[in-house]
Amino acid sequence: MDCAVTAALFDLPAWMDGQLARVEQALERWVDEDAPAGLGQAMRYAVLDGGKRLRPLLVLAASEAVGGHAEAALRAACAVELIHAYSLVHDDMPCMDNDVLRRGKPTVHVQFGQAQALLAGDALQALAFELLTPAAGVPEPLQARLCRQLARAAGAEGMAGGQAIDLASVGKQLDEAQLRRMHCLKTGALLRASVQMGAACGVADAAAQQALARYGEALGLAFQVVDDVLDVVADSATLGKTAGKDAASDKPTYVSLMGLDGARAHARDLRAQAHAALAASGLADTRALAALADMVVERSH
Amino acid sequence: MDCAVTAALFDLPAWMDGQLARVEQALERWVDEDAPAGLGQAMRYAVLDGGKRLRPLLVLAASEAVGGHAEAALRAACAVELIHAYSLVHDDMPCMDNDVLRRGKPTVHVQFGQAQALLAGDALQALAFELLTPAAGVPEPLQARLCRQLARAAGAEGMAGGQAIDLASVGKQLDEAQLRRMHCLKTGALLRASVQMGAACGVADAAAQQALARYGEALGLAFQVVDDVLDVVADSATLGKTAGKDAASDKPTYVSLMGLDGARAHARDLRAQAHAALAASGLADTRALAALADMVVERSH
Repeated sequence: MDCAVTAALFDLPAWMDGQLARVEQALERWVDEDAPAGLGQAMRYAVLDGGKRLRPLLVLAASEAVGGHAEAALRAACAVELIHAYSLVHDDMPCMDNDVLRRGKPTVHVQFGQAQALLAGDALQALAFELLTPAAGVPEPLQARLCRQLARAAGAEGMAGGQAIDLASVGKQLDEAQLRRMHCLKTGALLRASVQMGAACGVADAAAQQALARYGEALGLAFQVVDDVLDVVADSATLGKTAGKDAASDKPTYVSLMGLDGARAHARDLRAQAHAALAASGLADTRALAALADMVVERSH
Repeated sequence: MDCAVTAALFDLPAWMDGQLARVEQALERWVDEDAPAGLGQAMRYAVLDGGKRLRPLLVLAASEAVGGHAEAALRAACAVELIHAYSLVHDDMPCMDNDVLRRGKPTVHVQFGQAQALLAGDALQALAFELLTPAAGVPEPLQARLCRQLARAAGAEGMAGGQAIDLASVGKQLDEAQLRRMHCLKTGALLRASVQMGAACGVADAAAQQALARYGEALGLAFQVVDDVLDVVADSATLGKTAGKDAASDKPTYVSLMGLDGARAHARDLRAQAHAALAASGLADTRALAALADMVVERSH
């Protein structure tokens, strides 16, 4: 079936509504208010009621494409979101980006103090791995593989490493290869892991796995290019976070490198690459993944 | 065989030398200098060349007692040490304890800046779970169980939760039950997990598992009681960290609660409980675990 036609017939909003309800309900249940001394409240504040949940949606869409284990996929979806949420909490702290607004609310350290924000981020990372390793309900070999993928994506050769490059690059002129490497780690690693972890929940042959990996790579990069565009063209109210802060902090971006029109064209090209990878995957139904790639490129916040 | 005689025949220094060499070599290999933008150096600074390695020794001793999987135990030993090391990095930061000296060296944020210290701690936590989930060499069900135990011990219902209680308790009068709960989470959770993870690497019946859990509990508490005593009686040079800081920061301690002699007697009592648990375990050789309990109570730093 033609890929464009398939995507056109797919009702992304309805699919998203159903998946997001599951994710929100699961996060509500798993991020426990009862953690000691206010820690639970800070963790819930950081995670609930906010965010586009792109990473969980990618996990669930990839898992659907391979007929994945539903409980494992839901846990993986929440785990990647917890890693994302913790990274935002720490990234917003005064010693990092020093940001006071996130998802339209005061950032966690503004609301709860820096020490509690630091601990909440730390505890969210641990909780991500706890969610992946229930005492029952998910086969243990799958638990181990999901932990492996998430740990690598979150760590020094993934997200944390990308943040270190980002820190070191403030005020520097990066070329496209360097900028690409930074984002490939900083935001790309977790987006790619979302697709991989979803795919790990089911059965896919090597060709399909590789196609999904290419899809994840293109989507991860597209996400960052669009982020850089929105940082320039959108206002803070629409973004729910401080706009224009990359330029203000003299950070290299795709817009500073290739101009606004160049960056937009690059994002469209990456979307086409993502669609092409899905078409080559041989998987029967990749409509949700295709629609998510569209959403990433067309989003306004 | 009589327990005291067994312990007397055991050459703890020789056993420790062998085990510590394995741990140091493994950490040296697994905490990679090549992580981007100086992150690897900060991580290595936080982990290598320092620390008593009590947690890794507990993992390895418990694993030996149950004839555990050697590769799994070594990975678990390093993983708990990485969690411990990351918690020290974050705990020393200005928004927490604001400490400048650790293991006789400037703390990580003093040496590398706060942002890099924050990221190094985050990346060390991720690396702990990565070490537990190698692509080969350890059965995946065991990988999953070790991740589960470590995640719970590190998170909101474990170490991070204990730190939150600690933060909230500064300047407050805690009774023994409250103080016990704080330490049970803050330092006890990871010490208990060290014993449990070692035990998980092999085969032990329910009675032995429960005995080892009781051992871990008594040892974890003893460790903290002795810490409080040393904070009063030792100087900073001996401790390798700032002495007297609990009293200076108006934190409740076992010494402030039960006096110096009372705290010392309590530590000896807890050691006796740890030994009794080992004697009741039914395990053939718990000499290393017994000797480690002695070391914890008799240490001078």
